[in-house]
Amino acid sequence: MADIQNIPAYVDELARAAKKASRPLGRASDAERAAAVRTMAQALRDRSDEVLAANALDMDAAREAGTSEGLLDRLLLTPERIEGMAAGLETLADLPDPVGRVLDHRTIDCGLDLTRVSVPLGLVAMVYEARPNVTADAAGICIRTGNACILRGGSIAQRSCVAIAHVLADAVETAGFPREAVSIIETTDRAATGALMSLRGIVDVLIPRGGAGLIQRCVRESLVPVIETGTGNCHIYVHESADFDKAIPIIINAKTQRVGVCNACESLLVDEGVAKRFLPQVIAALREHNVLIHGDERTCDVCRELDLAEGGAFMPATEDDWGREYLALEISIKVVRGLDEAIAHINRYGTMHSEAIVAEDEAACERFLTDVDASSVYANASTRFTDGGEFGLGAEIGISTQKLHARGPFAAEALTTYKYLIRGNGQVRP
Amino acid sequence: MADIQNIPAYVDELARAAKKASRPLGRASDAERAAAVRTMAQALRDRSDEVLAANALDMDAAREAGTSEGLLDRLLLTPERIEGMAAGLETLADLPDPVGRVLDHRTIDCGLDLTRVSVPLGLVAMVYEARPNVTADAAGICIRTGNACILRGGSIAQRSCVAIAHVLADAVETAGFPREAVSIIETTDRAATGALMSLRGIVDVLIPRGGAGLIQRCVRESLVPVIETGTGNCHIYVHESADFDKAIPIIINAKTQRVGVCNACESLLVDEGVAKRFLPQVIAALREHNVLIHGDERTCDVCRELDLAEGGAFMPATEDDWGREYLALEISIKVVRGLDEAIAHINRYGTMHSEAIVAEDEAACERFLTDVDASSVYANASTRFTDGGEFGLGAEIGISTQKLHARGPFAAEALTTYKYLIRGNGQVRP
Repeated sequence: MADIQNIPAYVDELARAAKKASRPLGRASDAERAAAVRTMAQALRDRSDEVLAANALDMDAAREAGTSEGLLDRLLLTPERIEGMAAGLETLADLPDPVGRVLDHRTIDCGLDLTRVSVPLGLVAMVYEARPNVTADAAGICIRTGNACILRGGSIAQRSCVAIAHVLADAVETAGFPREAVSIIETTDRAATGALMSLRGIVDVLIPRGGAGLIQRCVRESLVPVIETGTGNCHIYVHESADFDKAIPIIINAKTQRVGVCNACESLLVDEGVAKRFLPQVIAALREHNVLIHGDERTCDVCRELDLAEGGAFMPATEDDWGREYLALEISIKVVRGLDEAIAHINRYGTMHSEAIVAEDEAACERFLTDVDASSVYANASTRFTDGGEFGLGAEIGISTQKLHARGPFAAEALTTYKYLIRGNGQVRP
Repeated sequence: MADIQNIPAYVDELARAAKKASRPLGRASDAERAAAVRTMAQALRDRSDEVLAANALDMDAAREAGTSEGLLDRLLLTPERIEGMAAGLETLADLPDPVGRVLDHRTIDCGLDLTRVSVPLGLVAMVYEARPNVTADAAGICIRTGNACILRGGSIAQRSCVAIAHVLADAVETAGFPREAVSIIETTDRAATGALMSLRGIVDVLIPRGGAGLIQRCVRESLVPVIETGTGNCHIYVHESADFDKAIPIIINAKTQRVGVCNACESLLVDEGVAKRFLPQVIAALREHNVLIHGDERTCDVCRELDLAEGGAFMPATEDDWGREYLALEISIKVVRGLDEAIAHINRYGTMHSEAIVAEDEAACERFLTDVDASSVYANASTRFTDGGEFGLGAEIGISTQKLHARGPFAAEALTTYKYLIRGNGQVRP
């Protein structure tokens, strides 16, 4: 690791060098950038021993620190996982080029030739947590799109991330670009993230990939523009016209298929028109999957009628529950008086991620699709489909819960901006 | 004016009501929104007396406070200027609708129907300075695009802005929408801007329109996403292949045609290959237009050879000068060693606004267009063309110097985002 005393000066220097390295990438052709990414893939294969050795040190340290099995599994690299990273890079190389698209072209008054063309952002910062494979993923998509990157991995995976980044930087150099185009912060000091967030004008975008704490810190503190990702307090609303044979499988899928993900269902709204019939069925189905229920009064009453254990199987929901992303086998349930109340509740407590209605009434579905303010709004399907791969976008970077620049699942195109090129022969403005 | 004691609570309440009012606008048709904007135009005409009376009070107070003639002129409303505002609103009504565009439509695996559609942002905050007409402009473009707005005018124009906003809110109500869709902060307390900037999740975007101080405050402090506008430290680089008969008129136009604007030229880079011949000519031309020169050593030497008065006509440039936006009859001049140094200088000191090269060498032009990192890059034309109207975008909101969401001159489309609508019949994720 580099000898790092003055963190802000270190990060500043690193970022300026990476920004400088972004220039030749910015003018490289599609083929040159794709070739660089293929070179990166091959380098990872050729030098997997180095990466595995660094990972072994991270694993030892993590085990000694009493890290949970789940986290250890996310940290672990194997030859197969490295091959997966390399194959992922090759997939990126094959993606269509989002750079250099002519978005508009016209001759404006006085004969000026105006072209609006997509160009790389410049320098992309990614801050992420335990998984070392994000290093290859992030570097690959940046190089593919003509951007330099400055990476900041989780402390627990620091040696693995640095080893991967060095292999990739060497490959970038072999491919004829400055190695600083793949830069990584080689200190685990938290101050480095703060320093990175202050570099407005040098770092062009900051993409945090990790837990809510990391993302909220970036949103609050960063002077660099952030693409906010990740938090999903997703609702399913069961309309009075709902087909229960669709509703229950959708709810069980959205809640239990994978619980730690941002597109999982966290809250169920049941229309009072069907509450009496639907609540006992859905509660029974959720309990079969060991889902803990945070219910409003009506829901808790049904739980009691079903002889469920208060405190163990269900408990009264508090105001806090409506805003919670459990990321666990837990769900909040509320009975609402019709479509308007459902929409208002979602627009108040939701995180603009993924929201669903189950209804046979087409007008109700359309109203919900229009009025719910979220990146992905569903009629009669599970919220779990919100994903760049499922949506056919190619390599997903994350799922944005903001409205500007990129919304919902976003991929390579989000790492581009555009510029106007104006070609004249001496024109002045009258 | 409203009785306002607790500023954060007041702004919060105002913004929440405006956000609520954005919902019916969000589902309104193109025709309904256009009709609302026409009603707003007519209301301004019908009630111009009220607006003029409020403006007279602002003018009296401003005169008493010793306000400069220039500022007084920007503050002044006349029947003609009100007619101009009304006509501007009617132009907005005629613009093509940026909302409801289908950006993508496909059937994804398992039969889900996926549509990506442009939708309004929701609640747009605009903070501006002295000119009361921005009130109508801002409210009009927001209503046209299906957004509610919360406005914050300059203190000196407060009565005028509030009077205009009230007329427009009444008109919006007449047109069948909640009047809160045009909301204005009715206190001149600076804390209100701070409160507005904290409302992430309620206010969807904040657009400051004003001086560098206001914009920098928003960029630094706002938790709400900002579209940064306005600062333009624009360069013209005279390449060794330049045609002086193009270069000099371009420089004079870009520097002197209007000095207080963000697309004016603030800095001139002269290639050393032509410095000896070009500097005396351009300096003489600039002096004819009374432009004060901040020159590097070489430039100052030429000024002395021309017998110009040091301190009056020219002075040595300091490091600060390379980053300054004079907004006055002043310019910095530096001799550079070729294209690379020119590009590096611009990418270091520029504000990513408008940059120009003057060159007959086409390869040099193309290199400059590709490598300069700015919203609008020119070959052989004046930087003064950077403007939504000139670029054919329709009603310009501002000129963005950021890269995300909107870059360069931006108009109605920047007030939209998109969402994914997914229609299924019970699909769950395997």
